[in-house]
Amino acid sequence: MALLLNVTDPDRISAFEAMFRDFPIRLVRSDESYDPDDIRYVFTWQPLEDWSAFFDLEIVFSVSAGVDQFVDLPDHITLIKMVDPNNTQRVVDYVLAACLAITRGFPVYSEQQRHKLWEPQPIASFAQTHVAILGLGEIGTRTASALKSLGFRVSGWSRRERDLEGITCVSGEDGVLSLLGSADIVVCLLPLTSETRGLMSASFFAQMKHGAGLVHAGRGAQCVFDDLGAALKSGQVGAAVLDVFDTEPLPEASAVWDFPNCLITPHVAGRTDAETAARNVAENLTRHLEGKDLLWQVDRKKGY
Amino acid sequence: MALLLNVTDPDRISAFEAMFRDFPIRLVRSDESYDPDDIRYVFTWQPLEDWSAFFDLEIVFSVSAGVDQFVDLPDHITLIKMVDPNNTQRVVDYVLAACLAITRGFPVYSEQQRHKLWEPQPIASFAQTHVAILGLGEIGTRTASALKSLGFRVSGWSRRERDLEGITCVSGEDGVLSLLGSADIVVCLLPLTSETRGLMSASFFAQMKHGAGLVHAGRGAQCVFDDLGAALKSGQVGAAVLDVFDTEPLPEASAVWDFPNCLITPHVAGRTDAETAARNVAENLTRHLEGKDLLWQVDRKKGY
Ligand SMILES: NC(=O)c1ccc[n+]([C@@H]2O[C@H](COP(=O)([O-])OP(=O)(O)OC[C@H]3O[C@@H](n4cnc5c(N)ncnc54)[C@H](OP(=O)(O)O)[C@@H]3O)[C@@H](O)[C@H]2O)c1
Ligand SMILES: NC(=O)c1ccc[n+]([C@@H]2O[C@H](COP(=O)([O-])OP(=O)(O)OC[C@H]3O[C@@H](n4cnc5c(N)ncnc54)[C@H](OP(=O)(O)O)[C@@H]3O)[C@@H](O)[C@H]2O)c1
Repeated sequence: MALLLNVTDPDRISAFEAMFRDFPIRLVRSDESYDPDDIRYVFTWQPLEDWSAFFDLEIVFSVSAGVDQFVDLPDHITLIKMVDPNNTQRVVDYVLAACLAITRGFPVYSEQQRHKLWEPQPIASFAQTHVAILGLGEIGTRTASALKSLGFRVSGWSRRERDLEGITCVSGEDGVLSLLGSADIVVCLLPLTSETRGLMSASFFAQMKHGAGLVHAGRGAQCVFDDLGAALKSGQVGAAVLDVFDTEPLPEASAVWDFPNCLITPHVAGRTDAETAARNVAENLTRHLEGKDLLWQVDRKKGY
Repeated sequence: MALLLNVTDPDRISAFEAMFRDFPIRLVRSDESYDPDDIRYVFTWQPLEDWSAFFDLEIVFSVSAGVDQFVDLPDHITLIKMVDPNNTQRVVDYVLAACLAITRGFPVYSEQQRHKLWEPQPIASFAQTHVAILGLGEIGTRTASALKSLGFRVSGWSRRERDLEGITCVSGEDGVLSLLGSADIVVCLLPLTSETRGLMSASFFAQMKHGAGLVHAGRGAQCVFDDLGAALKSGQVGAAVLDVFDTEPLPEASAVWDFPNCLITPHVAGRTDAETAARNVAENLTRHLEGKDLLWQVDRKKGY
């Protein structure tokens, strides 16, 4: 009965080794030789090559908050997402930085700088700026209240109906449409599912207020990048800050590098602490051994 | 007895015309013909060509918070700076946006983007980030508390000693040196005076923590741009967000456009509201007519 540590980062490996020193479950590193029949649990970022080689696999722990990469995991295996308050705070901070940058024209000025142009734009206050957040989960909810504290007008979209103080909450397809027309900045913090794949396409961008900004920190495949490029070129989308892409690292040949008024960051909005990850997994495995319900279970039907 | 309106922006002119409709002091626009002997007061952004042509000039009202451009104004003329809470808030917002951008690596990622490089950097939290603010006046003080509210560690430098809750305050030359070595971001919000001219030069950058960031929203001449360029190229200064330059608009031939890890904005941190400007001038002139002390007087000896 072992936990397979399918990660290579030294900080993660040593955090797990420290946490599991006196633990009833043995740790196995993926660079060691091991018998797949011993593996009951896996901690991994990416899916294993062949799940069927692991007969006794019960629980997969995701390194990250997003779990879309595990869509092919057999249904009987429990999938656990990573919930790390420090990671959440990092994504919140990133979105704040991106929204402030867009509000004060930084992506546009950066583009002007490339062309040695000096063209002051009107200055928007935070209170004049409406930010619509797609996804009101762990991260979206906290992002919404952080933006509200800074004085922004904030609304949000979720699958089920939500009620958050001081935030206009909507749900359903009509819901998102009702926000797009008036938002100055749209922030994507959605999980990737069959419903959110390709959500941000030409028709979506066309519904946005002309010249509004986009912050994308969900998952690359939620965005049709060719359509975004066209919308940025036409000015329909006025600025973008992008952290996620359909292929990562973004290939050198990608046209996305040259999108106008667009800042690209290399998937750095969040990062899970090694210690928190090890503690979360140990805590959940203790619950499991005691026969208690597991925390942070992914609803395999919903996909998040 | 007239107030010369030496500005061309239509919004400023109409705000003054509205405010001075029933006012005991007559308005004169600089594109009208007028007798210089009638001019007792001037509202202007730049110094007039020849102050000596205005025999009866008593008070000059600056359009902006900075008044360094009036260094040659004869000593007997009263100089009033612009204090506009909306303008102050705009500069505070700009500095927040710049500090968040630097904390989350945006200028560095923007540089990477130009070279199609995907190189994630370590993520700093706001609480880990020490921001040193040079200048704790109207704008600096409010910037300090806004950054503190976001969780940053904040210190500040002023000429006289200051005492601000939760902010490490220093003064004097030793004071600033004591901050430079530990600050992750240095923010310049100083007025331009004989003491602050050329302050940020090679020796200043050499005292900074290696790789720290710079936000410059004071006045261009406080920075030796060649030295800053060298410091950015060597990595001694890790990133910069610059709003002010020694020549504005920044000439196309300037090397500053190509400084690495550097965002250039076209002097847009602040902008005074036309209405507030007109109201401030009317309020002060009313006080003047009533023989009361004037508000927002510049100390001509200190230069701000
Ligand atoms: N860039 C990065 O470094 C980074 C880091 C961390 C996370 N992320 C991304 O952020 C995502 C969100 O993380 P989280 O922890 O906040 O997830 P979460 O707690 O599961 O929240 C997901 C939110 O999205 C909403 N949602 C899902 N499908 C929807 C649909 N079809 N229509 C409308 N709303 C829908 C959910 O609605 P309900 O509330 O109704 O369920 C929920 O509010 C992750 O899945 C990952 O893709 C990125
Ligand atoms: N980029 C833009 O769009 C923009 C917009 C507005 C303003 N600004 C710039 O920001 C400057 C500051 O504006 P403000 O309204 O905050 O000015 P302020 O209220 O006059 O404050 C100036 C501050 O600088 C300090 N200071 C002056 N000389 C110093 C020296 N030699 N050593 C240390 N500290 C010194 C002063 O110290 P004491 O407290 O001891 O007097 C004071 O704290 C303006 O002068 C202008 O240059 C730029």
